[in-house]
Amino acid sequence: MNQELLQTLCLHHEIDQLNAAYTAALDEKRYCDWPEFFVTDGRYKVQARENFDRGLPLALMNFESQGMMKDRVHGITQTIYHGPYHMRHIVSPARVLEVVQEDDVEVVRAQANYAVFRTKPGNVSEVFNVGRYIDELVRDGGALKLRSRHCVYDSELILNSLIYPV
Amino acid sequence: MNQELLQTLCLHHEIDQLNAAYTAALDEKRYCDWPEFFVTDGRYKVQARENFDRGLPLALMNFESQGMMKDRVHGITQTIYHGPYHMRHIVSPARVLEVVQEDDVEVVRAQANYAVFRTKPGNVSEVFNVGRYIDELVRDGGALKLRSRHCVYDSELILNSLIYPV
Amino acid sequence: MNQELLQTLCLHHEIDQLNAAYTAALDEKRYCDWPEFFVTDGRYKVQARENFDRGLPLALMNFESQGMMKDRVHGITQTIYHGPYHMRHIVSPARVLEVVQEDDVEVVRAQANYAVFRTKPGNVSEVFNVGRYIDELVRDGGALKLRSRHCVYDSELILNSLIYPV
Repeated sequence: MNQELLQTLCLHHEIDQLNAAYTAALDEKRYCDWPEFFVTDGRYKVQARENFDRGLPLALMNFESQGMMKDRVHGITQTIYHGPYHMRHIVSPARVLEVVQEDDVEVVRAQANYAVFRTKPGNVSEVFNVGRYIDELVRDGGALKLRSRHCVYDSELILNSLIYPV
Repeated sequence: MNQELLQTLCLHHEIDQLNAAYTAALDEKRYCDWPEFFVTDGRYKVQARENFDRGLPLALMNFESQGMMKDRVHGITQTIYHGPYHMRHIVSPARVLEVVQEDDVEVVRAQANYAVFRTKPGNVSEVFNVGRYIDELVRDGGALKLRSRHCVYDSELILNSLIYPV
Repeated sequence: MNQELLQTLCLHHEIDQLNAAYTAALDEKRYCDWPEFFVTDGRYKVQARENFDRGLPLALMNFESQGMMKDRVHGITQTIYHGPYHMRHIVSPARVLEVVQEDDVEVVRAQANYAVFRTKPGNVSEVFNVGRYIDELVRDGGALKLRSRHCVYDSELILNSLIYPV
């Protein structure tokens, strides 16, 4: 097996495991675990495809550090008044795009398509939000962490509103 | 490549292949193949998240051996009167949680999110059942088999009813 | 690690990467890239499960070369008048079925389940088309390419109509 294939294979595996753990945390409502998938100065953005494609800045969520993410988690668990719902994520196997060296840091660029299904109490499950994760990952003490996750979703229209991160 | 990563990588691959073969059997209506994914004393349970989260026992299906599964297959193919429908499963890459030793048996714990789409004759496809597989796997003559598959689904409400296993 | 497992593992990885790149091209509307996932005399067919199961020939799309695919791309980008929509594909990890030798050519047979979500401007995302890819893959200068992709979808009824390949 050549070395390049072996490297992509391992990264593919590690990113899929990361995505599976990430979505499990959200789907199981362990929101406090969510910022831990990012490095301290990690970024998280949720943006409509219309704006992303046009290069416009407007985003539904835009956090520029783990601290801002923790603040959001505090909001959704303690202060925001909203109708509760379950989420269920299905994520495609990740696409490993490239590994680049940036000032002594190895950055992995990857993408994966996701679909989130929402279930409100007493209702059937429905398609809630579909799109793609555009990711930058770095090693932090051996494990891969997100330096940036950009969620670009297809529909301008979101059922009610997006309370939890996706 | 370190040994731990290599082991998880192989398990991840094998479980994804198992899930792909398992869902293909169901989606292609080869129901008789379905109990073969389990060991003889394998267990299969389909339970609403509400009950699972509260530790309540009520489950939609609860089979405690391959024999009970074969009985169900007999039921759905020979005796239960129901409107036919196609199923289509989409399963996320599996999350390998741990490998533990239990009395000389190596048990793999894994989970995967699933979405099942239902298509009734003359209708469009719709979201039918979404949830997660909580699995225990063991080796049976080299191949991985399910010792237990616990399907925990998000919606209390199931369109019509669940006839086939998911 | 035994050699057979290693071969399936690498193929599984390569096919998942191919599927991820394939669906990214379609979802990002880079339609011109789509025929490039096939060999020159590659085949592409989109067929309802009802016809596939009965061995009937009727298919929604049936292209027998890269040339025919390019012609379709010209059609959807230049001439067909249709309401625009976004697609989002979620594909299950591929199931590697077998590797067979056909006249000095190594052919890989694989399958994967897919779900396509459609988003029309100003609307929510909805389930559009679900089914499975039945694939034959060959090596073309090192990289895996599709010699044949047969998309068998579950619903006879397609919302409006299928404009883009899936």
